[in-house]
Amino acid sequence: MTETPHPLFTRHADTLERALTAITERGYWSAYPESPSPRVYGETAAADGEAAFRSYLTGKFPLDQPGTVDWVATEASPFGIDLGVQYPHADAETLLAAAATALPGWRDAGPQTRVGVCLEILARLHAHIFELANAVHATSGQAFVMAFQAGGAHALDRALESLAYAYREMTRHPATATWEKPAKGEPLRMTKTFHVVPRGVALAIGCNTFPTWNTYPGFFASLVTGNPVVVKPHPRAVLPLAITVRYAREVLAEAGFDPNLVLLAAEAPGERLASTLALRPEVRIIDYTGSTEYGDWLEANARQAVVYTEKAGVNTIVVDSTDDFAGMCRNIGFSLVLYSGQMCTTPQNILVPAAGISTDQGHKSFDEVAAGIAGVVGKLTGDPARAVELTGAVVNDGVLARLNEADGVGEVLLASRTVDHPTYPGAVVRTPLVAKLGADAVSTYGREWFGPISFVIATDSTTHSLALFRQTVGEQGALTASVYSTDETVLDATETAAIECGVHLSCNLTGGVFVNQSAAFSDFHGSGANPAANAALTDGAYVASRFRVVQSRR
Amino acid sequence: MTETPHPLFTRHADTLERALTAITERGYWSAYPESPSPRVYGETAAADGEAAFRSYLTGKFPLDQPGTVDWVATEASPFGIDLGVQYPHADAETLLAAAATALPGWRDAGPQTRVGVCLEILARLHAHIFELANAVHATSGQAFVMAFQAGGAHALDRALESLAYAYREMTRHPATATWEKPAKGEPLRMTKTFHVVPRGVALAIGCNTFPTWNTYPGFFASLVTGNPVVVKPHPRAVLPLAITVRYAREVLAEAGFDPNLVLLAAEAPGERLASTLALRPEVRIIDYTGSTEYGDWLEANARQAVVYTEKAGVNTIVVDSTDDFAGMCRNIGFSLVLYSGQMCTTPQNILVPAAGISTDQGHKSFDEVAAGIAGVVGKLTGDPARAVELTGAVVNDGVLARLNEADGVGEVLLASRTVDHPTYPGAVVRTPLVAKLGADAVSTYGREWFGPISFVIATDSTTHSLALFRQTVGEQGALTASVYSTDETVLDATETAAIECGVHLSCNLTGGVFVNQSAAFSDFHGSGANPAANAALTDGAYVASRFRVVQSRR
Repeated sequence: MTETPHPLFTRHADTLERALTAITERGYWSAYPESPSPRVYGETAAADGEAAFRSYLTGKFPLDQPGTVDWVATEASPFGIDLGVQYPHADAETLLAAAATALPGWRDAGPQTRVGVCLEILARLHAHIFELANAVHATSGQAFVMAFQAGGAHALDRALESLAYAYREMTRHPATATWEKPAKGEPLRMTKTFHVVPRGVALAIGCNTFPTWNTYPGFFASLVTGNPVVVKPHPRAVLPLAITVRYAREVLAEAGFDPNLVLLAAEAPGERLASTLALRPEVRIIDYTGSTEYGDWLEANARQAVVYTEKAGVNTIVVDSTDDFAGMCRNIGFSLVLYSGQMCTTPQNILVPAAGISTDQGHKSFDEVAAGIAGVVGKLTGDPARAVELTGAVVNDGVLARLNEADGVGEVLLASRTVDHPTYPGAVVRTPLVAKLGADAVSTYGREWFGPISFVIATDSTTHSLALFRQTVGEQGALTASVYSTDETVLDATETAAIECGVHLSCNLTGGVFVNQSAAFSDFHGSGANPAANAALTDGAYVASRFRVVQSRR
Repeated sequence: MTETPHPLFTRHADTLERALTAITERGYWSAYPESPSPRVYGETAAADGEAAFRSYLTGKFPLDQPGTVDWVATEASPFGIDLGVQYPHADAETLLAAAATALPGWRDAGPQTRVGVCLEILARLHAHIFELANAVHATSGQAFVMAFQAGGAHALDRALESLAYAYREMTRHPATATWEKPAKGEPLRMTKTFHVVPRGVALAIGCNTFPTWNTYPGFFASLVTGNPVVVKPHPRAVLPLAITVRYAREVLAEAGFDPNLVLLAAEAPGERLASTLALRPEVRIIDYTGSTEYGDWLEANARQAVVYTEKAGVNTIVVDSTDDFAGMCRNIGFSLVLYSGQMCTTPQNILVPAAGISTDQGHKSFDEVAAGIAGVVGKLTGDPARAVELTGAVVNDGVLARLNEADGVGEVLLASRTVDHPTYPGAVVRTPLVAKLGADAVSTYGREWFGPISFVIATDSTTHSLALFRQTVGEQGALTASVYSTDETVLDATETAAIECGVHLSCNLTGGVFVNQSAAFSDFHGSGANPAANAALTDGAYVASRFRVVQSRR
């Protein structure tokens, strides 16, 4: 390689090197501090970030994209914050043409320069992390600290992880090679050049609950492999991605590239812009997080593109026995309360033998186990001021409708309550509902109830629990699973079931790690091996098909 | 890793290590000598291999597969060799059930053991290379030396390359990792296990012309990543893959695994077994080489599987100028004669400016360029005994039909001739047809004419040639392209066009390397970036989606 490294590559080479080590080792590592403390980010960072966020409200968002024909404002904050941000609105044709025009210069810049520029975008976003966190908080309904962590630091970690995978994949082969084959007389000699060629235009479709965390990995994996990215945010969570697009364009332009490599595709109500874009021949990569129905539609119809989807599933806990009953209940209860069950990783089904389980506190009946978990949920949500810092607010009316529907299902162990938010009078806050079901109610618990709804299900035995686990996760998929047991053979049997259903498993979580958390650089998120997702964050398969190698030999 | 290496891994560790280095460097390397000389393979190897081949003829092929209901014989040798080999015939249900039963033990053996066993299968096949070469020769119509090289040594090289990529991909992550996150008080600690989980059953659909070379990469990539493989050969080229299945099952059984990890799915005439298998839910990976029509059908309909296809294309040469006119004509002419144009990499369209080109022999008119190439073809095929060692025989009636159709197209520069094979009186041998076309005849040259049919096309200029190149390759795809020019700007412009059409380019081949050859460990075959193929031999994308990682954390 005679290429002189781009200054942005040189600037971030250490970060990249550390990230490359992290993805090889998959131990603990994080590049972006998750504590919003002034000791970490400085005394003024929080106030500056909030001010930057507030400056966007009820105005035109500063984006100088081509083809803007009008401005659209589609957000409604779960906290009742008056957003009213207006976003530029263009037709698909114009956006795709601008993206396609931007492609060749970015492709020809090569992997090293592209990763340098993308790392600078991450650094720029990190410098604006409080602004991002406020935007995620306001649009998703996540409590602020969670929005800062999941929507800020952890989203950036996932983005860096994805850049590291993509960079390693693009540099798996040398840029050039000399081929010399022995022959009669002179050997045969050729010089071969291997070009990394992007697929085309990438479309990143964001979701309402985790607009940055779920969008960044695909966004950065596509961009760094040479594909311009059109970002289509959820109409109710535009701001976090508009901010992202803004700073990405800023960095691209500063580095001498066409800023139209990154474009915001905000949509007017009812426009169905995602579907229009998804079917265009120029769009060769699609990343999507959201409903199973729409994800399946994309996979079936956007045949010209490689489609990466994360969809719905039924996350499941198998409770067999425990040597820390209190810790188990605390851990499960906390998992249910966090963001009022609106994480794609929140457990829904808790399978417990009807005859009860053995614990460090002696035998506990099924009802005692259920009451133990429900009790923790009740306690964590008892005080409104503390409750809302865990639950956040309800993201949309669909969740409320399911809560109403769930109210008539099974035997309610803990009813959902409305909580008045101490800070935001307009916030819609609900505590989790926990209901008891028989194992025969599979038509109820065998599908996803996205939101603060969980079922404690009475099974004949742990063997029966595992059979139900295989059945429901096998059919509907899941992003997470966990098991509690003091019996190694049960742990192993659950691990085998998890392997065969293709779901990631956590065993005996009783402390400060929760099943809904997945840490970049160590935990895989989604496996691609069950119906809940066709891809994983992040493995080789997630990045390898975003580009192709085209060879020239002379 | 505390795993004790499997003895077969230890036995082949050096080969694997060398292959892993080769795929990183992509210079020249080969593990299997391509010369069938007795000095390399021993005095008796050729005779022993031929005897082994002959022992199969007109009998029941020795395969103890489950569910055999009857025996089928569907082959007809292009050389007129009386084959009459009967293969076990079972229904799809039985084969898939047997494959699924074999999966867990193979999955649980882990990447290292699996790669050891697969390397032993390669060693076993290499020990039977003459037997394989005779089978490829007899069924494909390739001359013996080519069958030995492409169907034996090079096929094994491509297989080893694919094993190396898959092994590297499976071991990209550690098998286990310790995660330790700093926290208030004690750090949070977990042990994480990352399981490599196969997708399910793989289906490998073979082709008539290169039954081993085109099947081995997908076959071994699927098998080593833990997927049982059902091999569905082309009905006219069963024997090479039956031999492969036989020795693979032998090695698997010796190593203590279920031999049903590899199964032959021979079909009765008109059965459409490939389609039946391809749509079964158990089948999660499909590899296919053949027609665009059927490849497109698989991609559109086998939606439950990851589908890797190599289909048809219009391979193109751009002739602009040369400093070695004789070498250029020799090189192009040889490319057309080899296996009478029945390689998926054989050039079809030769774009030459109507005003002629400048060469080391002065200006050459369009007709002189065309005559130069046709003259080489004529000379190479003038003597029957020498001709058939290059052309081999015509693989099937489809090729003959196209030859007849081509006879009326454009102005024939060199007619196809029938050659009597000195050894095989029943052989169907045809020399290449070369015709002259105007640039406006795009409806003729804009589609694939598989077989010994090439067109020299008169264009307005090299710029016009490049526009036609972009148009035809962009629309129909291509596996190979080449350019002749003494002008660096033309070479660069062609390279840009090749990058944008996603086709591998060779520049100024005048010596002993031909555009139709692609060497394992160095050349990519197919790019996945144009309609001729959706995958490449071999890159990360070819192996990464054949398995998934499922994690367990305790």
